[in-house]
Amino acid sequence: MALIVQKYGGTSVGSPERIRAVAARVARAHRRGDQVVVVVSAMGDTTDDLITLAHLVTGAENAAAQHPREMDMLLTSGERISMALVAMAICREGVPARSLTGSQAAIITDTRHTAARILEVRAERVRETVESGEVAIVAGFQGVSRAREITTLGRGGSDTTAVALACALGADRCEIYTDVDGIYSADPRRVPAARRIPEISHAEMLELAAAGAQVMHPRAVDMGVRFGMDIRVLSSFVDDADQDESGRGTLITENPTLMEELALTGIASARGFATLVVRGLPAGMRTPTEVLIGMAEDGVSIDMITEAPHADGRILLQITILEEDIERTQTVIRRVAEKLGAPDPVMEAQGGLARIAMVGSGMQGRPGVYAAAFRTLMEAGVDVEAVSTSSISITVFVDAARENEALQALHTGFGLDAPAAVPATA
Amino acid sequence: MALIVQKYGGTSVGSPERIRAVAARVARAHRRGDQVVVVVSAMGDTTDDLITLAHLVTGAENAAAQHPREMDMLLTSGERISMALVAMAICREGVPARSLTGSQAAIITDTRHTAARILEVRAERVRETVESGEVAIVAGFQGVSRAREITTLGRGGSDTTAVALACALGADRCEIYTDVDGIYSADPRRVPAARRIPEISHAEMLELAAAGAQVMHPRAVDMGVRFGMDIRVLSSFVDDADQDESGRGTLITENPTLMEELALTGIASARGFATLVVRGLPAGMRTPTEVLIGMAEDGVSIDMITEAPHADGRILLQITILEEDIERTQTVIRRVAEKLGAPDPVMEAQGGLARIAMVGSGMQGRPGVYAAAFRTLMEAGVDVEAVSTSSISITVFVDAARENEALQALHTGFGLDAPAAVPATA
Repeated sequence: MALIVQKYGGTSVGSPERIRAVAARVARAHRRGDQVVVVVSAMGDTTDDLITLAHLVTGAENAAAQHPREMDMLLTSGERISMALVAMAICREGVPARSLTGSQAAIITDTRHTAARILEVRAERVRETVESGEVAIVAGFQGVSRAREITTLGRGGSDTTAVALACALGADRCEIYTDVDGIYSADPRRVPAARRIPEISHAEMLELAAAGAQVMHPRAVDMGVRFGMDIRVLSSFVDDADQDESGRGTLITENPTLMEELALTGIASARGFATLVVRGLPAGMRTPTEVLIGMAEDGVSIDMITEAPHADGRILLQITILEEDIERTQTVIRRVAEKLGAPDPVMEAQGGLARIAMVGSGMQGRPGVYAAAFRTLMEAGVDVEAVSTSSISITVFVDAARENEALQALHTGFGLDAPAAVPATA
Repeated sequence: MALIVQKYGGTSVGSPERIRAVAARVARAHRRGDQVVVVVSAMGDTTDDLITLAHLVTGAENAAAQHPREMDMLLTSGERISMALVAMAICREGVPARSLTGSQAAIITDTRHTAARILEVRAERVRETVESGEVAIVAGFQGVSRAREITTLGRGGSDTTAVALACALGADRCEIYTDVDGIYSADPRRVPAARRIPEISHAEMLELAAAGAQVMHPRAVDMGVRFGMDIRVLSSFVDDADQDESGRGTLITENPTLMEELALTGIASARGFATLVVRGLPAGMRTPTEVLIGMAEDGVSIDMITEAPHADGRILLQITILEEDIERTQTVIRRVAEKLGAPDPVMEAQGGLARIAMVGSGMQGRPGVYAAAFRTLMEAGVDVEAVSTSSISITVFVDAARENEALQALHTGFGLDAPAAVPATA
C-alpha cells in the first residue's frame, strides 16, 4: 500500500467527461489499495472567466493589484467547484471521497494575497481522511493565513500545493497529471523528433522550466528539490487500465538512474526578448552595480548582463531583457549614467529575439559542449546575439524568426532526436 | 448612525452593471454614516448552472441527495464569486469593504447538508468589520457546522441569513432587495390593478408566503417574528438618489401602523393541486388520524383534510393534496382502509385546481368576509371545490382555468384595486 498524491490541472478536469475519467483513474488507484490524495485546479477557463468578471465589475486594468484580498476570495471559488465535482464523480465510482478547501487542508501561507508562499502544511486532516479509507480531494492553488484570511499561491500554485502536500505527508509518490505525457527533449510542436525524457534531475528540470518549458512550474520543482520528493509528470489523457504509473511519463528526481547520459537532456525556448547595448559608461564594478540597483528599483527584470572593455576607461554593457521593457530600461540607464557623471550614453536596442536554453547535467565534465553548440548553430546559419552559461546549461539568444531552425539543428546535433520508426517486418 | 443589513438576491447581482448599481447604493448608505452589512446571493443562474454540472458529472437525477456534502461545497462557490465582486465594486466607490464567507461570518448551523438550520450567529467578526469603518459583505445561503463542515441553508437561505444576521447584530433595519418593489395585494402579472402594500404584519406575510407569494421566504419571515425584527422589502432596480429607504417598498412588521385597515391585505395563489374524495371509511376520530399517520409515514404532504357524515356510520373524507401526489395518496388510503376493516373505499380524484388564499388580519372581528368571498366568486361564475380558513385567512380551491378571473373578482370585490390613474388636468 502506497500513499500517492495526484494533481490534475485545469485541462484534465475541463469537462464533465474529463472529470469522470479522472475519477475512474483515482478509483483504480484506491482499489489497488493505495491511499490517494487528489489535488485539483479550477476547471478549464474558470479562472480566466472570473478575472474577466472582476475587470468588468471594477473597470480596472488590474483588479488583482487593486483588490488582492477579494481577488483571492473570488478565484478560490474555482477549485471549490472542481473539487466538489471530482469528489462526487469518485463517489459515483463506489469509492468514498471528501473534498477539502485549502483552509480545511491547513495549507498555511503568509499574507501576500494573490502570491502567497506556503509556510507550513498541517496535514492531519488530510491524513485522517485517507486513513479512514476515503480519497481526499484538496483544492490546489489556495491556502489560508494564520489570521484565517483566504489566500492564493499565484502562478504554479496547484503544482506547488501537490508537492507541498506530498512532502508534508511523506507520500510515496507525487504524480502531476497534465495534457502531455511527460517532459520532452524539446517542444514537440517545434521539434517533431522530440523525445519524452524518462528521468530528469531536479536541477535540469529547474533550468528547463525557467527557460520556458511549461509543463512544471519551477516553484514546485524547487520544493521537490528541498524536500527530496520525486515528482512524476504524466498525461491524464492516456489510459493505462489497471497498471500503476511507474515507468511512464517523466520522473523528476534527485538522482536519475539512467545508464547512459547524453550531453544534453533537453532544450527549451521562449520569445519576446531584446538586447540593449550601452557604450560609454565608466569601467569598474560600480557601473553594473548601479544598473542592477536601478533596474530593481524600477521593477524591470534583467535576463542577463555582460560587460566588455570599450575605450578610454569606458565599457560596453550588454543587457538582455524582455522586449516590452526596452523603454523602461533606457530610462533607468539614462538615470544611472547621469549619476555616474557620464550623461548621454550611446544605446542600441535589438528586439525580436528568442532565448534558447540547452540543459543537461551531462555537460559537466564533458568539454566541447559549448563549442559544439556554436558550431551547430553556425552550420545552420543562425547568428548568436548573446550567450550565457551555468554549470548545466548554455543559453543563447537568436533572431526569433530562426528559432525553429536553431532548435531543430541543436536537437539533431546533440543526438536528442527520437530513433526513426522501424518499418514493420511482418 | 444606524446599523443596516441589506440583502441582494441573485437577480440584483446578476451582471457586472447590476453589481455596480448595488455598490453605488451601499456606498450611499455608508456615506450617510450608516454601518452596512450586505448579504448576497449567487449571481443570476449560477446555482442552477452548478447543479446542472453536478448532474452531468454524476449522471444522477438528484446529485444533492446522493452527495449532499459535496453539493454544499459546490454551491457555496456561487456566493463566494458574487460577494468578492460586490466587495471590489464597493471599494471602487471609495468605500472600504471586506467579504466574509458563511464560515468567516460564523453562521453556525446543524449538520443537515443542503437544508441546514441556523443554530447560532456569532456576529463578532461582522461587527468588528463594520465598527472598523468597512462594509461587511456576507455570503448568504451558507454556513458552517460545529465540525467545521460547509453547509447550505436550502430554500430561502439568503433571506434567512440576512434576517438572522440582523437579529444577531440587533440591526436598526433589515432591507431585502429584490426585483420587485415590495409585497403586492396580488400578483401584478395576474391582477393588473394590484397595489403595493406599504406595511404588512408578520402573520399576514407568513400566510401570503405560505400560499405562494414568492417575494419573501416564510422561513425568514418566521425568524423576523420570533426576534421582533422588522423587514423591509425593496426593489434594487429603483434608484432613489440620496434618500434612505424608509417609506418605500413593504415593511413587514409586528404591528403595522396603518390608520385604515381593509378586510383583506393581499391575495396569493398557486397551481398544481387536487382533491381526493373518499367514501365508505368508518366514522370516528380513528379514520382521519390513521389517514394523517399513513400520509406522514409515506412522506405525502396534505394541504387540507375535511370530513362529513356519509351513511351507515360511514364518512366522506375530502383531502386536498398536490396533483403529483394523487397516486401515492390513493395507496395510503387503501392501506388505511384495509387496517380499518373497510377495504375498497370509493375514491374520486379531481386535479387541475388552483389554491387561492385571501389573507388579512382585518378579517378578525369583521363578520361576513367568508360570505362576501363566496358571493363574489359565485357572481363571477367560479365554483369553489374546497375551502379552509384560519383566523386571518380564507383559502379556496378552484379550477385552475378560472384562477385569474377568481383573483380579479376577489381583488376588486374586496376593494384592493389601486385607484385608477387621475387624468392630468393641465
